Amino acid sequence: MSGNGFGHTFRFTTFGESHGPAIGCVIDGVPPRLSLSEADIQPWLDARKPGQNRFMTQRREPDQVKILSGVFDGVTTGTSIGLLIENTDQRSKDYGEIKDTFRPGHADWVYEQKYGLRDYRGGGRSSARETAMRVAAGAVARVILNALVPGGIVIRGAMVQMGPHAIDPGRWDWAAREQNPFWCPDADTVPHWEGFLDGVRKAGSSTGGVVEVVASGVPVGLGAPVYDKLDADLAKAMMSINAVKGVEIGAGFLAAQLSGEDNADEMRMGADGRVQFQSNNAGGILGGISTGQDIVLRMAIKPTSSILVPKKSVDRFGNDIDVVTKGRHDPCVAIRAVPVAEAMMAVTLADHLLRHRAQCGG
Amino acid sequence: MSGNGFGHTFRFTTFGESHGPAIGCVIDGVPPRLSLSEADIQPWLDARKPGQNRFMTQRREPDQVKILSGVFDGVTTGTSIGLLIENTDQRSKDYGEIKDTFRPGHADWVYEQKYGLRDYRGGGRSSARETAMRVAAGAVARVILNALVPGGIVIRGAMVQMGPHAIDPGRWDWAAREQNPFWCPDADTVPHWEGFLDGVRKAGSSTGGVVEVVASGVPVGLGAPVYDKLDADLAKAMMSINAVKGVEIGAGFLAAQLSGEDNADEMRMGADGRVQFQSNNAGGILGGISTGQDIVLRMAIKPTSSILVPKKSVDRFGNDIDVVTKGRHDPCVAIRAVPVAEAMMAVTLADHLLRHRAQCGG
Amino acid sequence: MSGNGFGHTFRFTTFGESHGPAIGCVIDGVPPRLSLSEADIQPWLDARKPGQNRFMTQRREPDQVKILSGVFDGVTTGTSIGLLIENTDQRSKDYGEIKDTFRPGHADWVYEQKYGLRDYRGGGRSSARETAMRVAAGAVARVILNALVPGGIVIRGAMVQMGPHAIDPGRWDWAAREQNPFWCPDADTVPHWEGFLDGVRKAGSSTGGVVEVVASGVPVGLGAPVYDKLDADLAKAMMSINAVKGVEIGAGFLAAQLSGEDNADEMRMGADGRVQFQSNNAGGILGGISTGQDIVLRMAIKPTSSILVPKKSVDRFGNDIDVVTKGRHDPCVAIRAVPVAEAMMAVTLADHLLRHRAQCGG
Amino acid sequence: MSGNGFGHTFRFTTFGESHGPAIGCVIDGVPPRLSLSEADIQPWLDARKPGQNRFMTQRREPDQVKILSGVFDGVTTGTSIGLLIENTDQRSKDYGEIKDTFRPGHADWVYEQKYGLRDYRGGGRSSARETAMRVAAGAVARVILNALVPGGIVIRGAMVQMGPHAIDPGRWDWAAREQNPFWCPDADTVPHWEGFLDGVRKAGSSTGGVVEVVASGVPVGLGAPVYDKLDADLAKAMMSINAVKGVEIGAGFLAAQLSGEDNADEMRMGADGRVQFQSNNAGGILGGISTGQDIVLRMAIKPTSSILVPKKSVDRFGNDIDVVTKGRHDPCVAIRAVPVAEAMMAVTLADHLLRHRAQCGG
Repeated sequence: MSGNGFGHTFRFTTFGESHGPAIGCVIDGVPPRLSLSEADIQPWLDARKPGQNRFMTQRREPDQVKILSGVFDGVTTGTSIGLLIENTDQRSKDYGEIKDTFRPGHADWVYEQKYGLRDYRGGGRSSARETAMRVAAGAVARVILNALVPGGIVIRGAMVQMGPHAIDPGRWDWAAREQNPFWCPDADTVPHWEGFLDGVRKAGSSTGGVVEVVASGVPVGLGAPVYDKLDADLAKAMMSINAVKGVEIGAGFLAAQLSGEDNADEMRMGADGRVQFQSNNAGGILGGISTGQDIVLRMAIKPTSSILVPKKSVDRFGNDIDVVTKGRHDPCVAIRAVPVAEAMMAVTLADHLLRHRAQCGG
Repeated sequence: MSGNGFGHTFRFTTFGESHGPAIGCVIDGVPPRLSLSEADIQPWLDARKPGQNRFMTQRREPDQVKILSGVFDGVTTGTSIGLLIENTDQRSKDYGEIKDTFRPGHADWVYEQKYGLRDYRGGGRSSARETAMRVAAGAVARVILNALVPGGIVIRGAMVQMGPHAIDPGRWDWAAREQNPFWCPDADTVPHWEGFLDGVRKAGSSTGGVVEVVASGVPVGLGAPVYDKLDADLAKAMMSINAVKGVEIGAGFLAAQLSGEDNADEMRMGADGRVQFQSNNAGGILGGISTGQDIVLRMAIKPTSSILVPKKSVDRFGNDIDVVTKGRHDPCVAIRAVPVAEAMMAVTLADHLLRHRAQCGG
Repeated sequence: MSGNGFGHTFRFTTFGESHGPAIGCVIDGVPPRLSLSEADIQPWLDARKPGQNRFMTQRREPDQVKILSGVFDGVTTGTSIGLLIENTDQRSKDYGEIKDTFRPGHADWVYEQKYGLRDYRGGGRSSARETAMRVAAGAVARVILNALVPGGIVIRGAMVQMGPHAIDPGRWDWAAREQNPFWCPDADTVPHWEGFLDGVRKAGSSTGGVVEVVASGVPVGLGAPVYDKLDADLAKAMMSINAVKGVEIGAGFLAAQLSGEDNADEMRMGADGRVQFQSNNAGGILGGISTGQDIVLRMAIKPTSSILVPKKSVDRFGNDIDVVTKGRHDPCVAIRAVPVAEAMMAVTLADHLLRHRAQCGG
Repeated sequence: MSGNGFGHTFRFTTFGESHGPAIGCVIDGVPPRLSLSEADIQPWLDARKPGQNRFMTQRREPDQVKILSGVFDGVTTGTSIGLLIENTDQRSKDYGEIKDTFRPGHADWVYEQKYGLRDYRGGGRSSARETAMRVAAGAVARVILNALVPGGIVIRGAMVQMGPHAIDPGRWDWAAREQNPFWCPDADTVPHWEGFLDGVRKAGSSTGGVVEVVASGVPVGLGAPVYDKLDADLAKAMMSINAVKGVEIGAGFLAAQLSGEDNADEMRMGADGRVQFQSNNAGGILGGISTGQDIVLRMAIKPTSSILVPKKSVDRFGNDIDVVTKGRHDPCVAIRAVPVAEAMMAVTLADHLLRHRAQCGG
């Protein structure tokens, strides 16, 4: 395998480059008789879509998904689901310059080293365009989770830090994130980020960020004791997203500083006869298995490498050069990572839900 | 799969609990004709072994590994390698108390919820005892890496933070880490950590830590553009280690704060005609593929959950209780995570090296 | 996994039903820098295409394949290859009758039992239409085999028995099979089969057949000693083709009747200093590993279950009924199995070739 | 993967050679809370054990299995199960002769070609000794099948042909097979086979055979429409057994001769309101999915290649030689294949049962 798929029991495999005719995926393992149509997938793609405001690349794609198989009379048949999105915004362009140039921070040079060639148009397979299929697969995963878990599972992401500017967790408000272009869960922070990002953009620079994803309603017991731990698979899922450089669960890196008594989440029997955790430093996962608390996960996203500021590099002929990356680019790719991270949470949970069914029934 | 293995082309699968008769593993995919004997594995196990000083659990196991198959006349045959370590230190003990108790921070409660029962002796499968087989498999992976990569690959881990006390990276000295019980790469930090940890231990408490692992000599081109990225697989590998709550590569979470121009690693042609990176914020991986620079990875380890400080919990009968975990425990499990993290780096690299050979030859 | 893919290191995953908008697949693991275009795939699809003579279903599809990704400037990039074939011949049809009926010999009833529903249009996923993607993936596999194996690998199939009428192996002539609609390697047999099959067709009946596939030029050493033996994977590959009920390698079932001395293929050193086998009862595979001789494999294909002869069955409402399957059907599906069997041989060999590279280099 | 495991959701991975210290396996995916002890496994190993009569190799091993993990207080814990059998009958022997010799019909030469070396002691990994772990894993699979399928699943194998001498299927009597050394289901055939096999043995020759395995009580719906069809996985399972050269399901190769109307298994509603098939040419599998009828499968086993009759061969130095294989050998390995084939049926069904649970619940 050269690794173009994710998951075991629920598994999707993607194909497609930013400048080919289309991108697509095959989803394997979907249970039968679940209601599914393009209308279940399209809204999530629309939320991810670039070009929606001045803080995103102006590349515009309708990203219209088509279900090519696996659904009949409005429900899944249990056979593989083929999804396709045609690439429509492939501006004809002179790649002469970029063709022989390696952009710092990009995968250009390592691709050329590994494969002996690369598709230099828009980054080829390394383009964030591939993440559209993650979002589509994530939408199918949500359908599974909501159908099989009583009460459903709510998966929401938010940007909690832009460059050096973090939100105040005490002011977290999920409703707020729908009303700004940053998925920011704090309305007061928004104008500050707008100002900061305008400055970054005007300087031809870029900035990183931190995204948090929370899954609520996850049943107790998903995961495994070793290797295919739920948190291990989530770490892989998130680190596989473009530009992610770090992942932490619950208290994460802060846990390294805590004492055992401060870190351990105490338990008490609730009035309803169910166990109640008194805190959630574990981020909803203990020993690789979900506790039923919210799964809380953060990831660090590096600044866009495509910037107007000149950077030292080399070309294919072994010359030292200076590179400036023109074109349509996001000053902060972390924004667009939010729906992708949500999707990867959904597919990982769906996979583990089905794996749990295989072993433990129910 | 319930997930007891790791890797694809190089794959090992483990079994065993802390209080069963033995632990072991099967390693599949090892190339033939590599020199291998117990002497290649035992030293790594010895380095991991508990009971070596006052900062580690006093559980003492010789951890003597036996190669049961796959080696003939001193070399690998290309068939599966079976490894076995007998458990010798299984003190007879009254588990009456722990049997019906759920310890906060441990996997006790989620195991019982998932499986409807658990092996309560020493944590069963969730015990860090399982990591001995990771270290053994890692030793075999090192043999592969050193045989197939000209010049070999050096994988070294160090503890860079204990509780809130981080080392000064400017004083990093690999030689120092061999001379203290903490794998600390700074001799001056050692007495401070000793004092701190003695205090923690005497208080019946515990502390977390941060471990850094560095792989030098990794060839350019290992990894894949999506999903099975080298960093994604490393994130899974590390997050699968007991008590790890966060993983970062290169600049990691700091990258979120940087500008694009500060983060991008510039390139220049070296005097030897080879590309030289001017910095390593990427941590040796771009677009999921190794750059040939050092792979640099850090992980956060939570404090040991087994402490003498009483914590609120519940028992199997639905009663609120207070739990105190007696017995032999590490005040800082991060110390023992160092050789395990090295091993997981080795197995991930070996897997990707063989996967690269499959697709790209060489 | 619900099993819509085949292979490990070379792996393809398909989607699509006979009456959906399109069928397609993703191929993962293809080495980079191999020359590939639609022209490498289309001829194999054309050879498989139905409607070419009176002995095949009159369903006519141009089966025009499109490469959607993974190829740039005429060569493979090492990333996943997406292939698509649009379904064009979807006659509007009243399925009212078939909808509630279970056809004997078909998967109708078991689908309904397993999934609680089925796509009854043309058999849905169980339609032989899916085999077009096998042929397309097989064409890509041939490109790999021919690029990586000096001299290339020739894979050819032939029909060696139609109903009870077997060819005389002594008259085998590969050139002959191109000149008749049956892939029959004996020109003298063709008129007999024509007469037989015309009778079958006019009677509204159908007949089975035996297909033989031979791979020449396979290097010594592909395969593994246990489980993923080359013959075991080939058996799975062939048995996964629609209507196949038996697979044998080399002497096959005849070997059960032989003595050890008659069965064992003796060896002698050839004048060229290479080992020469004196016979090939093994069919080119010993202990799960290729010997370098021709790989010879036969499979039994049952008669088409769609016939005009009425058969006893039941409907979805639990009534006894008599079923007659009208429409466009092949009187002998074994004919169309030939290119599919060749393709499955190619993908299995490509997978094992890459797996061998991973472990043993070269 | 170099392929030392079998199965997906229920998966076992084996290690060990005939002349190493031990053989063993890890079983992954076993559901929790199933009653399991060595007593559930040992009887199946005893039935397979060599040395029980004059028609089997006189190599004697007690084959005492030990459960090393995954079972606590008499029930499975859901974690991986480690099994171990020590090799006790490793006669010290001079391998000088065999060391440089390639035996015709054996894997000696291909091993040497593939790996550049081989463990020549008793065939190394290619020894039938490895099948002991298949039988052990099969015993665990039976526990799963009987626990999860109401009424349980009965899996029985029989030898139906020895050399050219087939039984009369009309005289089939399961009770008979327990009372003869051949697993022959027809008492009248036994003396004929005894005479035949005595002659074979005295001539220093060997003979092949055909084994049939029948699984009764299999629920409707196990399997998948493409690739991971139940029959495809069974074909792989059986073809992976040493010396097997052909596999057929239901009518098998005979189906190739039948007309559509003779082959299709008609259906009628039974008095109990359940569908009744009127015949079982399908062998219990349609479209890759179990029908609920008996699964019926036959496999051809080649004659033992180790014979006293001299055969032409070559040695490691490129000389033509004549080989005679002395030592303890079965004149008809098909006998010992019976319990192994049963075990492979059990593991394949257990795997598909759990896979079905994952996708379709229940």
